[in-house]
Amino acid sequence: MRFATLKNGSAIVIVDAGYTTLESLGFTGSLREFIRIGNPGRQRVLNKLTDATFAALPGNSDFSAPITDPGKIIAIGLNYIDHAAESKMEVPKSPLVFTKFSSSITGPADPVRIPVEITSRVDYEVELGVVIGEKTRDIPVGSALESVFGYTVINDVSARDLQFADGQWVRGKSLDTFCPMGPVIVPAGEIADPQNLDISCEVNGQILQQASTKDMIFGVATLISELSKWCTLEPGDIIATGTPSGVGFSRTPPIYLKPGDTMRTRIEGIGELNNRILAL
Amino acid sequence: MRFATLKNGSAIVIVDAGYTTLESLGFTGSLREFIRIGNPGRQRVLNKLTDATFAALPGNSDFSAPITDPGKIIAIGLNYIDHAAESKMEVPKSPLVFTKFSSSITGPADPVRIPVEITSRVDYEVELGVVIGEKTRDIPVGSALESVFGYTVINDVSARDLQFADGQWVRGKSLDTFCPMGPVIVPAGEIADPQNLDISCEVNGQILQQASTKDMIFGVATLISELSKWCTLEPGDIIATGTPSGVGFSRTPPIYLKPGDTMRTRIEGIGELNNRILAL
Repeated sequence: MRFATLKNGSAIVIVDAGYTTLESLGFTGSLREFIRIGNPGRQRVLNKLTDATFAALPGNSDFSAPITDPGKIIAIGLNYIDHAAESKMEVPKSPLVFTKFSSSITGPADPVRIPVEITSRVDYEVELGVVIGEKTRDIPVGSALESVFGYTVINDVSARDLQFADGQWVRGKSLDTFCPMGPVIVPAGEIADPQNLDISCEVNGQILQQASTKDMIFGVATLISELSKWCTLEPGDIIATGTPSGVGFSRTPPIYLKPGDTMRTRIEGIGELNNRILAL
Repeated sequence: MRFATLKNGSAIVIVDAGYTTLESLGFTGSLREFIRIGNPGRQRVLNKLTDATFAALPGNSDFSAPITDPGKIIAIGLNYIDHAAESKMEVPKSPLVFTKFSSSITGPADPVRIPVEITSRVDYEVELGVVIGEKTRDIPVGSALESVFGYTVINDVSARDLQFADGQWVRGKSLDTFCPMGPVIVPAGEIADPQNLDISCEVNGQILQQASTKDMIFGVATLISELSKWCTLEPGDIIATGTPSGVGFSRTPPIYLKPGDTMRTRIEGIGELNNRILAL
């Protein structure tokens, strides 16, 4: 089963084994609102699905991001050792938090639009996205994964010139369309081990990032537990868990995205984002 | 006229000249949702208010923050020259953006709770809060104030140890309850000049910050115009416009907040926040 959102705002669920058909979730509200009703309510909605009519699955270009209005995106910096090294930054002793504004979210096959008069150093970053399902505060590592509704793919597109000029990363990370997400949310119960997923990013057909989520410094359960020590995680919140090595700014010569480039951002068992770069 | 939100979630409007009575806004939804319906819809709701029944105004402790679920809080750093100087940081050439997570918002008379095992250097920061009323992108300075729904008071409570250890400021700024806000939103039309308001913060009755919003480096109109060059401002978004000098960490000796302390955070023409410090 996968959850997704169509561009008309409808929350849908994809239920067949081949993931070729969909049905409406039968819930009048966004996918975020569905998640916020809590697990017993969600189960009641899902239990009604058996008799619904199936429809042909639209292409990825008919999907929006599964969640377009999260309460917060908690982004984690330098969470893969090789990426910390290539960035010439110290490995953090506790999760390093920044954010992307929710207004930067765009769909899994929508263009990433670069305001070329503001930035000329735009970079890609594939990341595992964790969608919180339960209100969570002060949860121990051992039960932290019970807070997860599901997993998605995020491309943490970054304007390196703005990011490093400001020191604070949020502006360079939050330009409109700089957060492709989706195409679906896979429920937590269908991911056997979130720390054993292949993760990759291609630009113009060339694989530039390829790693496994097992290389995270702070795994998903540790992240949730650590974050919950100082802030309440709310249903629909998203954690972007950091990117592995291979980003453009650390390469010699550096690779920056330019209009016409295509990005393919994949995580095993979840799906892929296909975003083209356009000038704004 | 003032807008506020009661702790039961009701959006209210305070209409009488003495601000001693209130009535329901007659709108089933949060104040953020009211703002999001746009100005024509808001006017239709307000036009129906004339015959409503007034009720006695509750104390500030019955108010929640006017908006508890903004799409984003855009916080501006080092936006008063004296504060940049006392922080020993350079005056920014463009607005320096960070954020506070919306889960840190608390009411105008609610306690600020310090997790004493995580931080021992908690500081106060009075700030003018700007509530966006219209979807805004690429707006020139001259018409930028048309995007404003109204103004409120924010205390940008900050855990300096976390803020400076991380380098990224968001964690130290986003602990639960670290964003007291309110008590009301004053409509933009009732603030003659947002750059001519007295702004102050007292701790335990001693005035520690006292300035005027005329000392901002980037005024409200410039902030909105600059921010709108790279991100879409959405109705209900909040801009925390930065704090003047006098914060605790820059004093000799430094002043950090401790359980039992009381803060009184005021802006002329809007109101005041009264928050007590408690250990979590």
